[in-house]
Amino acid sequence: MTLATPLTGVVPPVCTPLTPDREVDVPSLRALVDHLVAAGVDGLFVLGSTSEVAYLTDRQRRLVTETVVAHVGGRLPVLAGAIDMSTPRVLDQVAAATAAGADGVVVTAPFYARTHRAEIARHFRLIADRSPVPVIAYDIPVAVHSKLPAELVLELAAEGALAGLKDSSGDLAGFREVTAGARGLPGFSVLTGSELLVDAALALGADGVVPGLGNVDPDGYVRLVRLFRAGDRDAARTEQERLCALFGIVGAGDPGRMGGGSAALGAFKAALHLRGVIDCPVTAEPQIPLSAEETERVGKLLAAAGLL
Amino acid sequence: MTLATPLTGVVPPVCTPLTPDREVDVPSLRALVDHLVAAGVDGLFVLGSTSEVAYLTDRQRRLVTETVVAHVGGRLPVLAGAIDMSTPRVLDQVAAATAAGADGVVVTAPFYARTHRAEIARHFRLIADRSPVPVIAYDIPVAVHSKLPAELVLELAAEGALAGLKDSSGDLAGFREVTAGARGLPGFSVLTGSELLVDAALALGADGVVPGLGNVDPDGYVRLVRLFRAGDRDAARTEQERLCALFGIVGAGDPGRMGGGSAALGAFKAALHLRGVIDCPVTAEPQIPLSAEETERVGKLLAAAGLL
Amino acid sequence: MTLATPLTGVVPPVCTPLTPDREVDVPSLRALVDHLVAAGVDGLFVLGSTSEVAYLTDRQRRLVTETVVAHVGGRLPVLAGAIDMSTPRVLDQVAAATAAGADGVVVTAPFYARTHRAEIARHFRLIADRSPVPVIAYDIPVAVHSKLPAELVLELAAEGALAGLKDSSGDLAGFREVTAGARGLPGFSVLTGSELLVDAALALGADGVVPGLGNVDPDGYVRLVRLFRAGDRDAARTEQERLCALFGIVGAGDPGRMGGGSAALGAFKAALHLRGVIDCPVTAEPQIPLSAEETERVGKLLAAAGLL
Amino acid sequence: MTLATPLTGVVPPVCTPLTPDREVDVPSLRALVDHLVAAGVDGLFVLGSTSEVAYLTDRQRRLVTETVVAHVGGRLPVLAGAIDMSTPRVLDQVAAATAAGADGVVVTAPFYARTHRAEIARHFRLIADRSPVPVIAYDIPVAVHSKLPAELVLELAAEGALAGLKDSSGDLAGFREVTAGARGLPGFSVLTGSELLVDAALALGADGVVPGLGNVDPDGYVRLVRLFRAGDRDAARTEQERLCALFGIVGAGDPGRMGGGSAALGAFKAALHLRGVIDCPVTAEPQIPLSAEETERVGKLLAAAGLL
Repeated sequence: MTLATPLTGVVPPVCTPLTPDREVDVPSLRALVDHLVAAGVDGLFVLGSTSEVAYLTDRQRRLVTETVVAHVGGRLPVLAGAIDMSTPRVLDQVAAATAAGADGVVVTAPFYARTHRAEIARHFRLIADRSPVPVIAYDIPVAVHSKLPAELVLELAAEGALAGLKDSSGDLAGFREVTAGARGLPGFSVLTGSELLVDAALALGADGVVPGLGNVDPDGYVRLVRLFRAGDRDAARTEQERLCALFGIVGAGDPGRMGGGSAALGAFKAALHLRGVIDCPVTAEPQIPLSAEETERVGKLLAAAGLL
Repeated sequence: MTLATPLTGVVPPVCTPLTPDREVDVPSLRALVDHLVAAGVDGLFVLGSTSEVAYLTDRQRRLVTETVVAHVGGRLPVLAGAIDMSTPRVLDQVAAATAAGADGVVVTAPFYARTHRAEIARHFRLIADRSPVPVIAYDIPVAVHSKLPAELVLELAAEGALAGLKDSSGDLAGFREVTAGARGLPGFSVLTGSELLVDAALALGADGVVPGLGNVDPDGYVRLVRLFRAGDRDAARTEQERLCALFGIVGAGDPGRMGGGSAALGAFKAALHLRGVIDCPVTAEPQIPLSAEETERVGKLLAAAGLL
Repeated sequence: MTLATPLTGVVPPVCTPLTPDREVDVPSLRALVDHLVAAGVDGLFVLGSTSEVAYLTDRQRRLVTETVVAHVGGRLPVLAGAIDMSTPRVLDQVAAATAAGADGVVVTAPFYARTHRAEIARHFRLIADRSPVPVIAYDIPVAVHSKLPAELVLELAAEGALAGLKDSSGDLAGFREVTAGARGLPGFSVLTGSELLVDAALALGADGVVPGLGNVDPDGYVRLVRLFRAGDRDAARTEQERLCALFGIVGAGDPGRMGGGSAALGAFKAALHLRGVIDCPVTAEPQIPLSAEETERVGKLLAAAGLL
Repeated sequence: MTLATPLTGVVPPVCTPLTPDREVDVPSLRALVDHLVAAGVDGLFVLGSTSEVAYLTDRQRRLVTETVVAHVGGRLPVLAGAIDMSTPRVLDQVAAATAAGADGVVVTAPFYARTHRAEIARHFRLIADRSPVPVIAYDIPVAVHSKLPAELVLELAAEGALAGLKDSSGDLAGFREVTAGARGLPGFSVLTGSELLVDAALALGADGVVPGLGNVDPDGYVRLVRLFRAGDRDAARTEQERLCALFGIVGAGDPGRMGGGSAALGAFKAALHLRGVIDCPVTAEPQIPLSAEETERVGKLLAAAGLL
């Protein structure tokens, strides 16, 4: 089971612009897709953590996928997160995402209920069996509180149950084990979710990158990947370090006043708003919004990065 | 905002019997309700962790609540878990549960997305504002990976945002702080989710108990609460210790082969099946089923407790 | 292997008064011992977490044990923590503590190095084999990052390797399992380290209590245990709740500015200083001291408790 | 405060060979040093986690440092871990290590007692003030259960309190922040403790590497660093992947029977024994030894790597 277009390159997790009353802002979502496509990204990932998938209702999730799929019109592959607590609920999400036109689904280990390696394996096998589109494993321990073992990912890949891995674990040694092990599995895509280690991940053999910050500066990530592939590692590193500095926007929100998610998603949306891509920087409930002063700090970092 | 019948006593979290192909087994669910009502319980809690809420689809969740509400017919209050990742998704669950007739909803802190005390407070306030029925906070760090601070629970209780607390945190010192602080809040119910410390919780001033093991032996928990209230603490302790021994059934499943949730829910359902209450002991996917030998161990502990 | 005087009742973990230049303040330490003995405590525990054992050099540890043993002069049993990372280092601490006259040693699971149940079992067996005095297991996951399983404690108790358990885990259900299992082991002492659940622990069958707050108000804990043993559970609960309110002093230090340990130990020492028991409230490096305003808050809570 | 020879290149954490009765095996320790020096390493680090520092008594620690310092005779810098729970105890370890001739000390954040960023900062400042030799921060959350924030490391480096960082956190994004920030601090050494990401760390700007597996195959790590520095990144990656495969020896021990530390240290020592470097593969108490079969698995991986 593979995607028609094998997944490589830059596949940003697409933010979900909201209106002031927290409905999906469809025109802004289309504008964001245009902004990403214009930069030359290689695919789009809707309904990931950066998309505030945890906050979107099922109705909103469908609207997001339908909007993006229709707007992209087949120019790029569109992956959709099918994020829910357990196999039966994820299968409902898979059905909705594929009905809305997604080319692949991205699935985490079970969460909320305690889980076990054997249950995680069973979960992915059951979903792969019943999904009409390829399944990409989403390793995100900060959200689901378990880590996908590299050997399990490779085992499921070898069986054909998984078409790829999106690794947001921060464990680059485990990521290396998967990239090395996946060399003999040509249809399998290894993607890093890190904003800060794209050059390192590519050097280990990653196929692509899914950076949240890629909403704000897709050109930067596209350039970084091209420089790396052209063999200019020093220039790639310089580009990466510029993006690391820009990533400082996620520290604008006061950690005493809000969680790390509110700060990061608030900063991405503030930046998209300041850059004129989306109409409103609001995040979903119950996240805490950035203050005017915090938004100003985001603006200064954008200006320093030459993005304003 | 209070429940018509103030919540006290034994309020079991009702298991969700499934058919071999993992549909809700409505006749078995009704039989289980009868089994609990006959024992003299004081309320029912559907769609909690013990009910495998994390595994039930939205369609199945509605069917469970409708079935139980209809079957109880107003004889007892029925609480329903409104378990999802964030405020907008929980509000959808609240709407479904109340449409199905629940008398109150049970709500956790946000999960999957990282959260913060200020966001948890906002979450409960927004839900309380929009819920047509009383909201009970569900403190279950093992599932949601944050702990509800006692002061926050009391603050929300004093505001009228919360009608009660269901504490499955295992932190009895924090529980004591809530019970002591809630004395001046007459409509507020403090419930423990512990199977093993009911006598201790009652001695601290708990209003009631929500024991998963109460599915298997509701008479035991009803007796325990009555003995305690009658002032016979030694007999209550003896009854509690008998139930602690029975709780050993959750250790029947091999922890090398399955997670703690599979073992506990598998044991409860195996016991209900062995006692003739439900037709099939199957648990939802991707949980690992008990083996025949493990089920036999459950049976021996049931026999030892005089329940076979 | 049992203590000459079986350990029951109130056994406070003795704070270690320091001079302004962070030497052990021997006269203040003797005064603190007098303060505790006068209140009618049943034993003393030096070099526990409340004693800042993690901060005391080996020379200071010896001085503390020698001072207390000499000052007590056999009137009460004196336990000493033998707190270090692994078996060989703990054995050195055991040798030092027994050379200094301790009647028993208190030992945690290994820490710093990753550990495993089998290694923890081996650790306690090796130490028990080589210790000239009884060994009490110290279950303190917040410090050592592993939990002693109840079955392991009972297994080691049945073998005679352990003379008791000091439980600072906060897991009252596990504590109950030990107290129930230890009923057939007459020499084995089950002690809770909780300040807030003494009445509950006694109701479960605890032999004694090791409350850090007992430095500040030993009379309160002695009274609480006596009331409980006299069968007056309501009065015991009232006394316990008074002590819970007093325990609020550990919240005087600003958690944004210092860790929970600095706040708790700083508050205990500030209270002992305000009550005139010790000469100087300083804590060991690198703990952050309470400010004058924070100390004032401690004073107000002491006054409210009738202790000034 | 800087080391006479700035720390770069391969600085293996030296295993501590033991005799069958768990005394330091001085001749084997000298042989191991010879084995490392012959491979061309750039420095030695004694009393690190790989050296079983958590298990060595103070007497054994001194003997190790004295033996290695004397045997090296100034040919290479020798760092020594000064590993203990808090500032006063670490200062005693610093005094012992420098008396034994160490050229620098390696110090973690406080452990056992709960800690806080402000306390960690104070801890390093106090130690730096009183240490006669340069202080290197040791970031090892798996052991001390807190992470050194990159900004704090850089702040302490800029003050001159720290001469370097040894990063065993597994957080390569944080490591990148330190390497980038340290570019303006010429005396500051940034070292990775990873065995598996040496090429990646060097690409980020690391000065050196402290790989436990470097005991077993120092030539491999020396070669890897030389290849990288010569600009041959593909050959460096191939060498790194060979070492990754060799690192599989740490999985020889059964995780059901022993902890990860026992498995890793047991494998390193088994390999050194099989390669004829040390006389006895025993590890310190209470670690679980490898079985004959597990040792055979180590041997097979050594053979596959061409090391037997």
